[in-house]
Amino acid sequence: MRVHQLINCLCKRSCMFLPLDNTMATQPAKQLCTQHHHVSKMFRPSYVLPKGMRQDGVACKSQRLMMENGLIRPAGPGTFHLLPLAQRALEKLIKVVDLEMRRVGSHKIAMPSLTSSALWKESGRWDMMGAELFKLKDRHKTELCLGPTHEEAVTDIIAAEGILSHKRLPIKLYQITTKFRDEPRPRFGLLRGREFIMKDLYTFDSSEATARDTYNMVCQAYTRLFRRLQLDFIKVVGDTGSIGGSLSHEYHLPAQTGEDELFQCDKCGLGANAETTEGARPVCPERLDETACPMRLRSGIEVGHAFLLGTKYSQVFKAYFADSAGNKQLTEMGCYGLGVTRILAAAIEVLSSEDEISWPQIIAPYQVYIIPPKGKSKEEAAIPLAEALCNDITDSFSHLQEELLLDDRDHLTIGRRVTDAKKLGYPYIVVLGKRALEDKPLYELHDAQQGTTEYVSKTELLEILGSITVL
Amino acid sequence: MRVHQLINCLCKRSCMFLPLDNTMATQPAKQLCTQHHHVSKMFRPSYVLPKGMRQDGVACKSQRLMMENGLIRPAGPGTFHLLPLAQRALEKLIKVVDLEMRRVGSHKIAMPSLTSSALWKESGRWDMMGAELFKLKDRHKTELCLGPTHEEAVTDIIAAEGILSHKRLPIKLYQITTKFRDEPRPRFGLLRGREFIMKDLYTFDSSEATARDTYNMVCQAYTRLFRRLQLDFIKVVGDTGSIGGSLSHEYHLPAQTGEDELFQCDKCGLGANAETTEGARPVCPERLDETACPMRLRSGIEVGHAFLLGTKYSQVFKAYFADSAGNKQLTEMGCYGLGVTRILAAAIEVLSSEDEISWPQIIAPYQVYIIPPKGKSKEEAAIPLAEALCNDITDSFSHLQEELLLDDRDHLTIGRRVTDAKKLGYPYIVVLGKRALEDKPLYELHDAQQGTTEYVSKTELLEILGSITVL
Repeated sequence: MRVHQLINCLCKRSCMFLPLDNTMATQPAKQLCTQHHHVSKMFRPSYVLPKGMRQDGVACKSQRLMMENGLIRPAGPGTFHLLPLAQRALEKLIKVVDLEMRRVGSHKIAMPSLTSSALWKESGRWDMMGAELFKLKDRHKTELCLGPTHEEAVTDIIAAEGILSHKRLPIKLYQITTKFRDEPRPRFGLLRGREFIMKDLYTFDSSEATARDTYNMVCQAYTRLFRRLQLDFIKVVGDTGSIGGSLSHEYHLPAQTGEDELFQCDKCGLGANAETTEGARPVCPERLDETACPMRLRSGIEVGHAFLLGTKYSQVFKAYFADSAGNKQLTEMGCYGLGVTRILAAAIEVLSSEDEISWPQIIAPYQVYIIPPKGKSKEEAAIPLAEALCNDITDSFSHLQEELLLDDRDHLTIGRRVTDAKKLGYPYIVVLGKRALEDKPLYELHDAQQGTTEYVSKTELLEILGSITVL
Repeated sequence: MRVHQLINCLCKRSCMFLPLDNTMATQPAKQLCTQHHHVSKMFRPSYVLPKGMRQDGVACKSQRLMMENGLIRPAGPGTFHLLPLAQRALEKLIKVVDLEMRRVGSHKIAMPSLTSSALWKESGRWDMMGAELFKLKDRHKTELCLGPTHEEAVTDIIAAEGILSHKRLPIKLYQITTKFRDEPRPRFGLLRGREFIMKDLYTFDSSEATARDTYNMVCQAYTRLFRRLQLDFIKVVGDTGSIGGSLSHEYHLPAQTGEDELFQCDKCGLGANAETTEGARPVCPERLDETACPMRLRSGIEVGHAFLLGTKYSQVFKAYFADSAGNKQLTEMGCYGLGVTRILAAAIEVLSSEDEISWPQIIAPYQVYIIPPKGKSKEEAAIPLAEALCNDITDSFSHLQEELLLDDRDHLTIGRRVTDAKKLGYPYIVVLGKRALEDKPLYELHDAQQGTTEYVSKTELLEILGSITVL
């Protein structure tokens, strides 16, 4: 039997610090599990977008802000490196998506990117997708593609189960994985790349009616998701495109950069993608009298999609179930996508100004940014107070342990670092200036969401920071 | 200014439940954020390994156990679907790796899989890797490869910074992403696939001495990691292979299935990969007298690798820094891999029996498995107590909220479900049998790590479960 002693780190947070020696130590560790994060140690290279790219319509605001502030870096046409701050925001966004996917009762899986050509030939999409599908051959000359979506693969998994009992339905499986699409014209940074992260959920129901219930449940989850992210969105009737199916809605973030044209009713908010209206200005689906409810043309960035697929794929791959009378029937499918890296960039696109990034609060890379005074300044005695403040915050609120960023670049003025922090859009910026040295120390607190700056005592500061929501 | 009201769910855990209507609700939500996880809703298809595959040396124990128990499913040669239980374990394993990578002060990034051929031609590995490199062409006939590792890409990122100040070093960047390698003979499930998840850390130092400090620090992190996972490992001097460099160690889990032959000293534990010894039985590096310290031949599964790369890549890609005297110098690099999906399978391979999976406790898909009595049995009055027990556990220990799995298949006997739960290797199995209905209810608790079964009161049960470590 294995006996391994786990001992806690000095930080008293359940970090499960383990000593390096082989002894079964019973005394507390003498080392901290982690230190606070320091700006001087961040890797945040600035990349200036070549002039003219924006005028040429290949770059946009979010792309420029993300490059200039060291969030992303171009790797090749339509591919980007996600640097540490973007990676942190992305992982937080994935947690939000996971939460909503759990709430609709779906389970997370991961299907490989390397996909057999046979599956795609069976569904007919090998040819239909054309040049958008990245195709390759392995060492045995076997044809493969890099999956841009996984209807074929997931239906094949379900079909392999044989005839399912109706009691096992609905089955809801999703993944959050890298997808590939050979875009004819990759542009706008993460908004239209050739390699991106997508959440794709696939559902299998026993009737069209229950498939519609599932459809509505997922649409509600999307509504909650965008509300959690504080993002206004437009839900429109969508095109079923190459995926196929009988009913489809798209979720768009309204933005000038958006590549989709949408008709939206000014009154009820409902709308349609202009692709689906064959050029005509449509009537609001809620009203019969066009003049009474004018549809406005807007631009949107498509960030989500819901499809009721019917039996299109279950028929091809023979995904059957037995109903309560024992009759063999085809499962009714749905598929539901969210462009995860696209949402990351689109949120920056719609929330930010030309100069400063603004994040949906819960996905900001760090929640609290702490700026001690400049070295060799009159206030330099407050420098050690910053590290102490970090400890006080994490001692009181363990959920903020990984959320503090200390700007230790004390060769820079406070003003220079506040400007930098605002560019990056951290929700809370705390400055320790000369008032931090008063008998009753006061901290300068910038609240990005409220747009306010105020001086607060440590008690007040802790109360405010303690209420930060971290997923 | 946007104002969004977040309200808490009835579960009182900080799940940030949001109501669906548009009102800024101030009353508590009327809906629970999530429900407990139920076995009847799990997607866990069993796939029986065709007979003969194991004799043919293409399948192994972990692969069979993972397939039969619905953890993975073959997708194509060397590719697998990760089903919900495997995905959960994988995400936990990634958390452990993240924690140790943070502790060495490294930052997480993500580099794309689609990699320009130019970079690989510059380093000379385009040809050197031969058929193992998946190559493809995009719609413009541009040559790309699917990155099996990212020395070229990461060095290019650093070099693009121009001449770095020595104060910015060391720089330590890692990623946990899907990698591709066209193995000539994919086999053993996740142990040797063509698409897998790897952690790769790249470090840039200002001297060979500091690069060695970094090297030792990462090796210590690997030691802690395997200790957290309760896995015995052998660290051996390794082959520098196609990656190149001056110093290398490999981490192996000793296993008969292992494809590597290792010489290990029985006394001090040090060893070498037989590949590096040119057929000769080596002398223990700690002793001069061979007879005094015999080296034993063992088989191992390679799960980690550390390389001191020197300036091999920084020279090719011109990754320079300026030393304190202002002189331009090449950065000293290291690279450090961990086969993440491989560790998942290897852990099962070395810990499990032929019939039952055994997990490193902290990565088990669920920590606690709860079995109520069979429906229409004498004990059926205890069925509702199971759901109540789940609530009691999560009310007391919020960190167990996502760790409970309730086996609601009440058409099955308790015995049948205990057998099933043991096959899956859940660390704690709690059975509500007839003694749960006594005046002082007793719960049957199976502890997989201790190998014990005992009857405990609810207070005792909560005390034991409360001490479960969850990352």
